[in-house]
Amino acid sequence: MELDLQSYLAQRKGLVEAALDRLVPAATRSPRRLNEAIRYSLMGGGKRLRPILVLAGCEAVGGALERAIPFACALECIHTYSLIHDDLPAMDDDDLRRGRPTCHKQFDEAAAILAGDALLTMAFEFAAQPVEGVNPTLQLELVVQLAQAAGVSGMVGGQMLDLLGEGRELTLPELQNIHIHKTGALIRISCVTGARLGGGDANAVQALNRYGEAIGLAFQIMDDILDETGDPAVMGKAAGVDRQRDKATYPKLMGLSQASKEAALMVDKALESLSGLSQAADPLRALARFILVRSH
Amino acid sequence: MELDLQSYLAQRKGLVEAALDRLVPAATRSPRRLNEAIRYSLMGGGKRLRPILVLAGCEAVGGALERAIPFACALECIHTYSLIHDDLPAMDDDDLRRGRPTCHKQFDEAAAILAGDALLTMAFEFAAQPVEGVNPTLQLELVVQLAQAAGVSGMVGGQMLDLLGEGRELTLPELQNIHIHKTGALIRISCVTGARLGGGDANAVQALNRYGEAIGLAFQIMDDILDETGDPAVMGKAAGVDRQRDKATYPKLMGLSQASKEAALMVDKALESLSGLSQAADPLRALARFILVRSH
Repeated sequence: MELDLQSYLAQRKGLVEAALDRLVPAATRSPRRLNEAIRYSLMGGGKRLRPILVLAGCEAVGGALERAIPFACALECIHTYSLIHDDLPAMDDDDLRRGRPTCHKQFDEAAAILAGDALLTMAFEFAAQPVEGVNPTLQLELVVQLAQAAGVSGMVGGQMLDLLGEGRELTLPELQNIHIHKTGALIRISCVTGARLGGGDANAVQALNRYGEAIGLAFQIMDDILDETGDPAVMGKAAGVDRQRDKATYPKLMGLSQASKEAALMVDKALESLSGLSQAADPLRALARFILVRSH
Repeated sequence: MELDLQSYLAQRKGLVEAALDRLVPAATRSPRRLNEAIRYSLMGGGKRLRPILVLAGCEAVGGALERAIPFACALECIHTYSLIHDDLPAMDDDDLRRGRPTCHKQFDEAAAILAGDALLTMAFEFAAQPVEGVNPTLQLELVVQLAQAAGVSGMVGGQMLDLLGEGRELTLPELQNIHIHKTGALIRISCVTGARLGGGDANAVQALNRYGEAIGLAFQIMDDILDETGDPAVMGKAAGVDRQRDKATYPKLMGLSQASKEAALMVDKALESLSGLSQAADPLRALARFILVRSH
């Protein structure tokens, strides 16, 4: 039986959003404006890629889905906070996100900074909550690794490298280095965390690690390609933004067709790394293939 | 033998700063500008009150100091990030902190936002690192409580309430509510975490909880009083800043002499709550008394 990826994604997205809705304070709770800003950004759509990777990583090694829910939510909170802070005037200064005003446009800068801080803090609250069937020593280790992937040696460091690189010519290795940190670290740790929560052995965890690394890069290359060629109505933001800003992108550094080839190569690598896993890893396989054909 | 508080504080401060220096990435590590901004703010002095409370809380119940070091560092990272973000132009817009340019003045706004994000993330990396002699289930619980004290229902929520209260007349209960969240939650959790890491029983933990609550308020009232009356050269920032901003303060709402009485009352309450503890709690007792006579 072939997997229907779209209904799989919709179903998993529903699970993640129901859990977020349950875990995150209601918008009516005090301080109301802060909780409104948090929910505006967190419940405002998005692909939920990272939490779905946590769930799919857990399932791929035969683990029960429920175990991975809190960490899945933690990953989405960290991703959302990073978008809110990156959109700030002092950073990328974006007015639109997913077709709606960015958090600081809808509320104000102070509320956006605090909403981001709150989401980052909340992520660790969720990740450290006791989960039935998960060994607490393992869980502490996963919290440490999550912090490392999100911090100076991961996502935050990558955003800094990205800002430092603006306005000057980057080499391909420099661009790659930015993406490995800025987006790659969190995608990779989503996959690894899922596998470890699911009780995967060392080989399986290693497979998910390689898979996460490869799809992280494939995803970023396709993001750059979509920024050049995508339909603004579908993407919810203007096309060609990175080029206008004179930002280094894969298509700019290697041309559109070479960039597409590179993305396909990374997807092959991701599929290869899963070769030792059973059918339970089929959603991960379908997800990797889907990266090449997505439109936003 | 009477306790020499000043040498106790100097010694504990030395311990905390040595541990921070060891745990936090060197300023020369990539991305250099980010690590420089982090260390500029984190290693730039300060009283180290919160980490010292973690250590003193641990000692007060007879626990080994070393156990409490990582959490002590985590508390200081969270405190430092909150200062960096609060100083931003969109928040309190401060140029000076501890007699030096604030982080966004010394670097830039983007670096300051990211340095804060990195410090908050790092706090959870440190708090979740395995500690010999500490039960991992207890440690997970302490990580959750740390996140709750730092987040929407604690410090971040308090900063939002503070911003929302600017420019309008606050009642005393409203002012109290802001401080209980903005500064109180972190001070309280520092004391409680120390006691729990040190193996304190339910009574001792409850005592430290009450103590932390009371000194948190005493500390804030004295902060407001010092802002009115303090010597700018000693404080490292201008005096009367809160009044100029038309911010609600204790002296403004109840008069200087009544505010002093209230602070003394809170210190009495703090001392009372420790009545069941041994001499090992003497540093906490001396610290509480010191709040009333400090000059910055």
